[in-house]
Amino acid sequence: MSEIVTAAMIVIGDEILSGRTIDRNIGHLAGMMTAIGIDLKEVRIVADEEADIVAAVNALRSRYTYVFTTGGIGPTHDDITADSIAAAFNVPCEFDEKAMTLLADNYEKRGMEFTDARKRMARMPAGATHIDNPVSTAPGFRIGNVHVMAGVPSVFQAMLDNVVPTLRTGAKLLSAMVPCPHGEGVIGGPLAEIQRRHGDTIIGSYPKFGDGKFWTELVVRARTQEALDAALAEVEAMVAELSARK
Amino acid sequence: MSEIVTAAMIVIGDEILSGRTIDRNIGHLAGMMTAIGIDLKEVRIVADEEADIVAAVNALRSRYTYVFTTGGIGPTHDDITADSIAAAFNVPCEFDEKAMTLLADNYEKRGMEFTDARKRMARMPAGATHIDNPVSTAPGFRIGNVHVMAGVPSVFQAMLDNVVPTLRTGAKLLSAMVPCPHGEGVIGGPLAEIQRRHGDTIIGSYPKFGDGKFWTELVVRARTQEALDAALAEVEAMVAELSARK
Repeated sequence: MSEIVTAAMIVIGDEILSGRTIDRNIGHLAGMMTAIGIDLKEVRIVADEEADIVAAVNALRSRYTYVFTTGGIGPTHDDITADSIAAAFNVPCEFDEKAMTLLADNYEKRGMEFTDARKRMARMPAGATHIDNPVSTAPGFRIGNVHVMAGVPSVFQAMLDNVVPTLRTGAKLLSAMVPCPHGEGVIGGPLAEIQRRHGDTIIGSYPKFGDGKFWTELVVRARTQEALDAALAEVEAMVAELSARK
Repeated sequence: MSEIVTAAMIVIGDEILSGRTIDRNIGHLAGMMTAIGIDLKEVRIVADEEADIVAAVNALRSRYTYVFTTGGIGPTHDDITADSIAAAFNVPCEFDEKAMTLLADNYEKRGMEFTDARKRMARMPAGATHIDNPVSTAPGFRIGNVHVMAGVPSVFQAMLDNVVPTLRTGAKLLSAMVPCPHGEGVIGGPLAEIQRRHGDTIIGSYPKFGDGKFWTELVVRARTQEALDAALAEVEAMVAELSARK
């Protein structure tokens, strides 16, 4: 059986905590991790405050295989992610020569001034390596097991696409969904029984409400097809039996 | 200057971390906190694992004025929030008599069996007080500064409406209700448009059942009478237009 690879995500940004911006990156990272067989175990959304970012990075980077951050790597005064990551690793935050060249070339091509604010985007912790940004040039970076990426969804997604091939991935988690026209109160008992009999699966039950009634999405996950199929057959039989009873 | 009141949120659920379900509660809580003058400082999304929930609750409840949780209070085996909160507070998790009566009455009225699974929803930490659930009866609860609410967005929003008036806040939130004879499927689109045009308001939609049919309670909230009235007028016009079309 293959190794379990785990991950945590840190979303950095007051704009998410104030409700002004709705996060669109958590769902994307979560789906991507599941698809490649990495268990996303925790997400934290923290404010643009160095102490909060440092605390989250240090709590999570020692606990999980990988940490992914989004946000706070732009050119404005409240973009403090690079400094905070450097502080977490106790290394200086410096202008990276390769990043300076990339950005200088880019702004020259576009006929724009390479302002001091823009130069901030070339700062990263000493020892960090680049994560390429094919959308808007300014690179993310990786230091240790921490991957620092942009908050703008299109840029984040492009950066993540460059990161994924570098990750050790675990056994892919297989999953199957069974729509169930019954609420959780009806299925709770028998479903717990099925979960008990199939300890090598994770069975989730997700209540939905729509068209004026409650229904349930039942999801079975397992690392092998055999384990998945065995539990799935019982879940489907349970739903069929409950429906026949009505 | 008024006192600074802070809050943290804990989203409990494997389905969010796997990417199967996109969270819709963080943005709502964030907007509501901003509207009533409470600073949301941190959000954590944790797995359905007791140790993870306990760690998050204890880290955050000592640090912030209020903690709000969503998810894991249904009737199935993976709903372990009540037990985990009890463990965090080091008190027993017990069947609550008032909750048992509420649920028993509700299921009797609906001609449904009050199964052992459903009885699980009456369990809460000793000393907890109810958060009423006008949508589907099963209450949330409050213990200390921790407010435990449902993960289904319509239920979460209705519970939060009951919690907000109990909070110490920096600013008062005005609200107005518009009864709407249409279901959420009909009003969802136009209502989202109104919300987009009125970013200084929070518009909620709560499905109801009565007199043999489904209807919806639309609630507009704002900090100023002007903002409230402007959005309210559009909501009322929308309802009138939809009713005229029938």
